[in-house]
Amino acid sequence: MNLDFKVLASRVFKNMKTNIRISVDAMGGDNGPRIVLHGAVLALKQCKNIEFVFHGKEEILKPLLDEFAILKPISTVKHCEKVISMDEKPSNALRKGRGSSSMWSTLQAVKDGEADVAVSGGNTGALMAMATFCLRPIKGISRPAIAAIWPSMRADIVVLDVGATVGGDAKQLVDFTILGSALARALFNQTSPSVGLLNVGVEEMKGLEQVKEASRILAQAKNAGFSYHGFVEGDDIGKGTVDVVVTEGFTGNIALKTAEGTARQVGTYLKNALKADLISKLGALIASRALKAFKAKMDPRAGNGGIFLGLNGIVIKSHGGTDEIGFKSALCLAHEMAKDELLEKIAEGMERFPTSIDQTEKAKEIS
Amino acid sequence: MNLDFKVLASRVFKNMKTNIRISVDAMGGDNGPRIVLHGAVLALKQCKNIEFVFHGKEEILKPLLDEFAILKPISTVKHCEKVISMDEKPSNALRKGRGSSSMWSTLQAVKDGEADVAVSGGNTGALMAMATFCLRPIKGISRPAIAAIWPSMRADIVVLDVGATVGGDAKQLVDFTILGSALARALFNQTSPSVGLLNVGVEEMKGLEQVKEASRILAQAKNAGFSYHGFVEGDDIGKGTVDVVVTEGFTGNIALKTAEGTARQVGTYLKNALKADLISKLGALIASRALKAFKAKMDPRAGNGGIFLGLNGIVIKSHGGTDEIGFKSALCLAHEMAKDELLEKIAEGMERFPTSIDQTEKAKEIS
Repeated sequence: MNLDFKVLASRVFKNMKTNIRISVDAMGGDNGPRIVLHGAVLALKQCKNIEFVFHGKEEILKPLLDEFAILKPISTVKHCEKVISMDEKPSNALRKGRGSSSMWSTLQAVKDGEADVAVSGGNTGALMAMATFCLRPIKGISRPAIAAIWPSMRADIVVLDVGATVGGDAKQLVDFTILGSALARALFNQTSPSVGLLNVGVEEMKGLEQVKEASRILAQAKNAGFSYHGFVEGDDIGKGTVDVVVTEGFTGNIALKTAEGTARQVGTYLKNALKADLISKLGALIASRALKAFKAKMDPRAGNGGIFLGLNGIVIKSHGGTDEIGFKSALCLAHEMAKDELLEKIAEGMERFPTSIDQTEKAKEIS
Repeated sequence: MNLDFKVLASRVFKNMKTNIRISVDAMGGDNGPRIVLHGAVLALKQCKNIEFVFHGKEEILKPLLDEFAILKPISTVKHCEKVISMDEKPSNALRKGRGSSSMWSTLQAVKDGEADVAVSGGNTGALMAMATFCLRPIKGISRPAIAAIWPSMRADIVVLDVGATVGGDAKQLVDFTILGSALARALFNQTSPSVGLLNVGVEEMKGLEQVKEASRILAQAKNAGFSYHGFVEGDDIGKGTVDVVVTEGFTGNIALKTAEGTARQVGTYLKNALKADLISKLGALIASRALKAFKAKMDPRAGNGGIFLGLNGIVIKSHGGTDEIGFKSALCLAHEMAKDELLEKIAEGMERFPTSIDQTEKAKEIS
């Protein structure tokens, strides 16, 4: 293994550092900076060794820091005039907000080494465009992906891409495998997480051509930092059949939102059933502790945060419409990502299973 | 409207007929012919004016008919030597089973006018290949689709394609709109069901090119037997934002299976929570009526049956691993489809919004 000097130096440096520095877009999200700073207070209670750089309008953030005084000793504010709105087109956001917006400034701090990780609850498309432009894709990775940490019946698993790309060829799916398995190694302390390619059937002959091609490439991987399981289907996500589920962003995003919608629907059915008559209400009251535990398990705020992978820097996208509890989850996820040296794990994964167009071509020749 | 003589004649003929004749592949499914015939007994109790033609091995089916004697006066058995196995490749199934298998015979009966609708719980890929070969696509429809009737928080909705095609261009998505909206008109007694195209965002600029192109074509539809809503996202399925959700088969299949997996996962969470301690168990016992109602609502057997659309004949695919209750649902769905004159509604839809490659080309010029 050929860990270069830069990586080694960064490790030593990381061990010397006492705090994880989180760069936060304080203006991002539907619910304003108060939610963001309140979330930071909650994160501070949960995660050790944390520092914040808040990016946004000083005249708003300074009074909020006075209010949440516990944050003051570990926070700095970086004034930014512009705020990217939630409905701005990515291309416009990039043109107008480059350099001057809170979103850009949040990313720039990671690029400049002033922070270890960036968090924003702003416009996803704009954030992805800016992050790609500011932090640049890792050399050898064709396009970035957004990974979700998805609760399954077995354990949490990683699903990617849930919306960064639309469409994707075999090379991209192989790249996503390397990114996703590095994330699983960082998060779950596994040495060789299992990876499945999302498909419409587990048989060899089924599915899209690029998915089959990616499968042929992945089947050749040995000691690559992941073990390739083969194809998985939609219901394997909830079962937790594999540690990492790989797909392109169109299907991944629709799977994610369909699951969210289904969970909400089932929750509503249950609530309505338990309100149907007095006896049911009484039963629900008696079982309230169990129902509360169930509700907590279903709480989408607990798993808030999409992880942008494939860039020279880690970016966490919080759900825009969340509250302080959801934002706290995103901040704690960012903290964990930085602590676990995700970028180094990705670099290591790329060395262990070098992907390139050549690899794809080779597979074509073999098949 | 230009309903031709054939359609008119079939309507008159249908009104003269007293019974809906269902052609049943008695050998299809994981659990054998007993489940199939038991399901028929249950369907007979629920649906009026029903007749069965069972296709399969006489030496197995005749004794079963003796056992389920109530079926005898309304059933005929068509002996078939071959059975298509659940893991047979579609191309092999077609080569080996054409003419001689229970699956083929089930479809042939619809083609020959001996039955109004076909039902099989066999191998989906083989059934789709055989159905396409035997019944042929409707002239003007590029490829068939499988539609699912999906429970939403508002009402049942139609989602297609959930697995017949993999990938699909704009023309196909427009065809699916015509097929799906005809199904919604037949099933839900609506004159102009709302249709949404499944996409990763509701904004104009997002998503796959073919989805955007289909959207441009559908936006021009007027008085077409459906009203085009625009793009919908994964969570709109559970919400019931539209009556018909249109997508190609790869994404549709993954959405369907992800939703099934999520529903099962949430159900398991609830069951485990309610078993956690004695008080919770007591509460669950008291609320048992509500929990039973909830369970019934979640029962996948209640909505069993994928509908093959776009062929000159109606075919219902039952889940292969279901029991007699699930098979009963598939038979009742078939009964309803035949009764509601689905094929005529599709023909009508095609006249009201003629789709052709020209239409796609026209949209290209406009955009």
